[in-house]
Amino acid sequence: MPYARISLHRGKSPEYLRQLADNVYRAMHEAFDVPAHDRFQILHQLDPGELIFDRDYLGGPRSDDFVHIAIVAGRPRESAVKRAFYKRLVELLGQAPSIAPEDVMVVIQTTGGDDWSFGGGRAGITAADAGLSGPPR
Amino acid sequence: MPYARISLHRGKSPEYLRQLADNVYRAMHEAFDVPAHDRFQILHQLDPGELIFDRDYLGGPRSDDFVHIAIVAGRPRESAVKRAFYKRLVELLGQAPSIAPEDVMVVIQTTGGDDWSFGGGRAGITAADAGLSGPPR
Amino acid sequence: MPYARISLHRGKSPEYLRQLADNVYRAMHEAFDVPAHDRFQILHQLDPGELIFDRDYLGGPRSDDFVHIAIVAGRPRESAVKRAFYKRLVELLGQAPSIAPEDVMVVIQTTGGDDWSFGGGRAGITAADAGLSGPPR
Repeated sequence: MPYARISLHRGKSPEYLRQLADNVYRAMHEAFDVPAHDRFQILHQLDPGELIFDRDYLGGPRSDDFVHIAIVAGRPRESAVKRAFYKRLVELLGQAPSIAPEDVMVVIQTTGGDDWSFGGGRAGITAADAGLSGPPR
Repeated sequence: MPYARISLHRGKSPEYLRQLADNVYRAMHEAFDVPAHDRFQILHQLDPGELIFDRDYLGGPRSDDFVHIAIVAGRPRESAVKRAFYKRLVELLGQAPSIAPEDVMVVIQTTGGDDWSFGGGRAGITAADAGLSGPPR
Repeated sequence: MPYARISLHRGKSPEYLRQLADNVYRAMHEAFDVPAHDRFQILHQLDPGELIFDRDYLGGPRSDDFVHIAIVAGRPRESAVKRAFYKRLVELLGQAPSIAPEDVMVVIQTTGGDDWSFGGGRAGITAADAGLSGPPR
């Protein structure tokens, strides 16, 4: 049930953006307990001067490939899960589209299950919550 | 006191965007206990590849008209209020600009009253909080 | 450890945007207990019709120079700190780039320390948390 708002400098290829989004989702699915197909992402491409980040604070050095990933989740995760997710995420993004680990920043926020409506005016983050019969479509 | 960040594909008419924003606010006012004139909205129009969503997860089928509505509110609402809001929202957006209910996704987050400053460096979400005399202007 | 998403109408000069971002960070550093160099900001410039705000709700009158500053912080602050921050922020933005106090809206959200990864797949908002030796780079 999470969604991710991913901010980076404009100018990457469609293939780069696709690999970035794919691997953010893949890390969430593999290590953050996100179900298959539960994928909602917004890519925000920014022009020079619109994406400001310290090159060295608590990490770095950061390059112009810096990517800021803001996630809103529908239920809390244990600290160990978050830590495993961060590690898997930089691993996958290092493979494709080849983003350096120090260029990957993540911030997670959590809200409640009934704070979500996936469609149809139904509340909830499970098929049962949302009054859908059978497995999620 | 809420604000809404509304994300959708670029390409709709100004009239479509106006109806979308108007009816998001109207549903919040009618069903989410939001005062008259308490309206702050950001429309984020996205190009192909920037707005990624599963077509069928917990609902759907979703079309290219998919709209993602992220709300930050200044105080909690009862679950029943949220449920009524989701229903009223898809009803109104179905009327204008004619968005299918399955294309409407909502995520609500909540923060505290003193986490808001509406202007002038004043804190709070009521006229009294903010030290304004008389009714809110 | 906070980051700020700053939304305003498109059309300002690079110098205006730089002063805006600089003074948002400076107010956070001076009055919101944010460390030196802890600066991460996203400027979202919006076209007409994309940034909607009531001109008079709980303040105003607001002008086309309205700026919406959404902050996500890594630990809670006392109410007095928030209040001092709002005041310092409008003071500094009034100096440069000369934004009227009534045009400055702020919303703060808070998340946990292990909800942050500043890079390298490390969790946490301090050098110790993140397993970095020595002072933060």
